[in-house]
Amino acid sequence: MPRPSAKGRILDAALETIHGQGYNATSIQDITAAAGAPKGSFYNHFASKEALCLEILDLYRERELGILGILEVPGTPSRDRLIRHFAALTEGNKCGLERGCLIGNLAAEAASASPAVRDRLARMLSEWTSLLAACIREGQASGELAANGSPEDLAAFLVNAYEGAILRAKADCCEEPFRQFEHFLLVLLD
Amino acid sequence: MPRPSAKGRILDAALETIHGQGYNATSIQDITAAAGAPKGSFYNHFASKEALCLEILDLYRERELGILGILEVPGTPSRDRLIRHFAALTEGNKCGLERGCLIGNLAAEAASASPAVRDRLARMLSEWTSLLAACIREGQASGELAANGSPEDLAAFLVNAYEGAILRAKADCCEEPFRQFEHFLLVLLD
Repeated sequence: MPRPSAKGRILDAALETIHGQGYNATSIQDITAAAGAPKGSFYNHFASKEALCLEILDLYRERELGILGILEVPGTPSRDRLIRHFAALTEGNKCGLERGCLIGNLAAEAASASPAVRDRLARMLSEWTSLLAACIREGQASGELAANGSPEDLAAFLVNAYEGAILRAKADCCEEPFRQFEHFLLVLLD
Repeated sequence: MPRPSAKGRILDAALETIHGQGYNATSIQDITAAAGAPKGSFYNHFASKEALCLEILDLYRERELGILGILEVPGTPSRDRLIRHFAALTEGNKCGLERGCLIGNLAAEAASASPAVRDRLARMLSEWTSLLAACIREGQASGELAANGSPEDLAAFLVNAYEGAILRAKADCCEEPFRQFEHFLLVLLD
């Protein structure tokens, strides 16, 4: 792997720090210290903390593309793709119960303060919802999945229920919400 | 209504401010300024911002007791109680889409920083889940509700899915997540 640039190191450190302790609790100094960079160098790369936040959301999205891609694997039944997609998400979330989801955390914390962050979060949630909806639509059309609602509504409900499960796992510091989500995912699909 | 005490005014102002802009974005000075109280007076009433946060959670819970009570109204079918309970919550949430839920916001933001806050949030979510589970158990026992899962699991799933719907409504700044929740609530109950 190539050695990351100074900007790349700041981005990596910012993603870790903001994901772990939150947007408002993280100062620019926290980020540069975690990156081992001089504080003054921050503004060589980013216009503001808000601009940095938009870039870490891009980075987060990039890292999650593999898990989104499970929804589009050709030659696999929709039901399997949906189950594997959420199982892969859960595997990742179980490794950081106390961190929660970066998108959910920022929606709770920064959405009201920054219209640009709110808009980016809405677009990321909408992209995820659309990929889920396409997979559900296929499964409903082939009769493989029950038609309990429109693919778009079920997809949005599942995204929101899953974000809620991550939040509860963080509050309770336990994995139970993921088991419960998996159970009702099957109830709604079958 | 009796004129609130100085402490009461600070609590009211803190609940509004922290609910609106978040825990870490709110300074003690923001709170005393919103309460029209001298900054120095804060520590006459609260040992710390964390101690204040626990008291505003008590206040928030007190204000929501009426909506929790809908789940226990005697002589009403369980299904109606569940629907009315979530409808009442949604009515309140629609008035402040951009604020979201105080419990969810604090779970996302403060749970990792303060074990005492995390513990209080977990207890509040557990109380809500237990009341929902009791109502679901009654409806399942009488055959009025489908038995798609244990009352405890369904109750927890609904609490988490509802918190996720509030978060999405905040990110998207729209009421659609509540309509989708209501739809799948009925799918899971019937």
